[in-house]
Amino acid sequence: MSAVIVCKKLNIICSIFRNFTSTSNSANEVVPLKEVKRFIIDCLKAVNTNLRNAEQLADVLVAADYRGHYSHGLNRIEIYVNDIKGNVCNQNSVPKILKETVATAWVDGQSGLGPVVGNFCTDLAVEKAKNVGIGWVVAKNSNHYGIAGWYTKRASDNNMIGMSFTNTSPFLCPTRAKEAALGTNPISVAAPGISDDRFLLDMATTAVAVGKIEIQNRKNEPIPEGWAADENGQPTLNASVAQKARRLMPLGGSELTSGYKGYGLCQMVEVFCGILAGANYGPKIRKWGDTNSLANLGQCFVAINPECFAPGFKDRVSDLNNILRNLSPADSKKPVLVAGDPEKFRMKLVDKEGGIRYHVNQIKAANDLAKNLNVDPLKMEPIRISE
Amino acid sequence: MSAVIVCKKLNIICSIFRNFTSTSNSANEVVPLKEVKRFIIDCLKAVNTNLRNAEQLADVLVAADYRGHYSHGLNRIEIYVNDIKGNVCNQNSVPKILKETVATAWVDGQSGLGPVVGNFCTDLAVEKAKNVGIGWVVAKNSNHYGIAGWYTKRASDNNMIGMSFTNTSPFLCPTRAKEAALGTNPISVAAPGISDDRFLLDMATTAVAVGKIEIQNRKNEPIPEGWAADENGQPTLNASVAQKARRLMPLGGSELTSGYKGYGLCQMVEVFCGILAGANYGPKIRKWGDTNSLANLGQCFVAINPECFAPGFKDRVSDLNNILRNLSPADSKKPVLVAGDPEKFRMKLVDKEGGIRYHVNQIKAANDLAKNLNVDPLKMEPIRISE
Repeated sequence: MSAVIVCKKLNIICSIFRNFTSTSNSANEVVPLKEVKRFIIDCLKAVNTNLRNAEQLADVLVAADYRGHYSHGLNRIEIYVNDIKGNVCNQNSVPKILKETVATAWVDGQSGLGPVVGNFCTDLAVEKAKNVGIGWVVAKNSNHYGIAGWYTKRASDNNMIGMSFTNTSPFLCPTRAKEAALGTNPISVAAPGISDDRFLLDMATTAVAVGKIEIQNRKNEPIPEGWAADENGQPTLNASVAQKARRLMPLGGSELTSGYKGYGLCQMVEVFCGILAGANYGPKIRKWGDTNSLANLGQCFVAINPECFAPGFKDRVSDLNNILRNLSPADSKKPVLVAGDPEKFRMKLVDKEGGIRYHVNQIKAANDLAKNLNVDPLKMEPIRISE
Repeated sequence: MSAVIVCKKLNIICSIFRNFTSTSNSANEVVPLKEVKRFIIDCLKAVNTNLRNAEQLADVLVAADYRGHYSHGLNRIEIYVNDIKGNVCNQNSVPKILKETVATAWVDGQSGLGPVVGNFCTDLAVEKAKNVGIGWVVAKNSNHYGIAGWYTKRASDNNMIGMSFTNTSPFLCPTRAKEAALGTNPISVAAPGISDDRFLLDMATTAVAVGKIEIQNRKNEPIPEGWAADENGQPTLNASVAQKARRLMPLGGSELTSGYKGYGLCQMVEVFCGILAGANYGPKIRKWGDTNSLANLGQCFVAINPECFAPGFKDRVSDLNNILRNLSPADSKKPVLVAGDPEKFRMKLVDKEGGIRYHVNQIKAANDLAKNLNVDPLKMEPIRISE
């Protein structure tokens, strides 16, 4: 793809993000990445987390906001803090290998922080893949690990194909069912291309995240068909009803539009996680926000070494990426993207502006927490480049 | 699940299949499984395929029809025969390992029959998984391998989790694009449960198969939103337009309903297949029905040994299956199923009736081919139990 096309696409997408963030931002200030990290580490240290573990969680949350996935960043810090305070997360524990071959490992996360478990398992999988071509590692007794894409990016930074899966609290209403019984169970896969190019898929197996329904509800607007069901398991277009019911439809929506495939993928993730790891699974996982019981999530981390297969892997990854990006778009204002491109554009914007724009309510919530924990509030800075 | 509930569910689902098949059937006759197999083997022998290889292809095609996936069974035999006649498929070749570790292999399919390549790679993956917990095998120079679920069932019959992926001729129109650029790229995953129970997902990453659009077109009825795009890449509800355009939408449909996730999964399959194997990929794969060039498809086969992880895997697979099957249904006439259940019910019906019901046009097409190849026509039998 030529530099001109890249720039043109970048401008279009940046303008989409500007529109989005400017309406959700507190005036013209940003929080530099290192300040977000400082803040999260301080909050975790305030509940007796050691620096090594606090840094690992902070890195994942900052990465989420940096990539534009606000639902999995700073806004989650309170949940982690509450789990630690409620003694259902052991903030300083170290994962332990229970069973191992040259290519696999079964790990006990020891109820530790999700990112500590996730990084440990990813690095173990990468090491095995360096030696024998693949590492397949599953963990039980884990906690929420942030964005699934963190771990696959980590593997792809080590020249591996990375895969990562986690189960979650029940939110997905299986095709034909009246109630939620599986999690949003994400799938992430990353493959390294030439230089910084890559394929990076990171998706829930539900049609959308709860957050998208909340936004429609706030705007008092309906939701599209295929996003969510009501309390009887019937499709609904009413955002308020959907938000209360908490029954997300699987990717694909209704049975007519093949929602059973998304449901099948969701169960596949559960097979790789709770079922393979011997962790909690399906409706046995605690409800979202419950800090009275252990989450005992199951997670799965894979690294595959392209060197063990056909030479020229990275060239082909980037070639396919560019073939797809250069397809004629159906609407000239919307260029064709590959998985990971929106986040890449988003990060460029954050770099330009010198930090992350947060919604005023997010800043307030974070500073309320800081006050409780006796931590310095977030320091804002003016946007570096205003266009 | 109690026996009574199973029987009730079976009756409901059998009646759905009876309705479906009775409208597409040639009167009250069936073709026994072994007669379908005999017929396919004879056709392949007529174009100089050795018995060992002919049997392997026949088994996969019979399994497809037995499971109710008519699009991938007997109706495909002519395509395989044409590839052999056109010298773009080497019907007697044996796959060759090019590179290998204890846990991985890169295989040259030698332009052989897809099922011969697929069985070879699956068995190799299972062997590796028995030794070191996992086998990840990719093949280049392969051909159409039939239903992806054949290979994962084979792995799960050996007490392994099986995964299987293949790229295909371009049919999927990526989100925002005007034209098709990726295949229907299926994902299959199977996990063994207690006795004959299992989880068996086998799905194209497009919203639907071309065949479903053809059926709507024949009935002169519209297609649901999210199935297909027109020649400009715009969503269409017109079945005739969709059939001509051959631009399937990804699982999830439009961008609004997260079709980019299905598109991402489709590219993920391509990464595991054409990209990892060094085979053709994306729009470089020949058009569907073209017998003038090598397909050189890429395929990926995985076996994971649950013994290397938490004990009690099969119990948990069946427990989750039954939790899901026993969920209250939104509509009491439509019980909740898990992936693989519809096919199981379908096979029971075929067993009851003593063979497969085929559409009269399918029988005619098969017998026309038989005449050309100087092969005995299909022998029909009366339905054994008519209810």
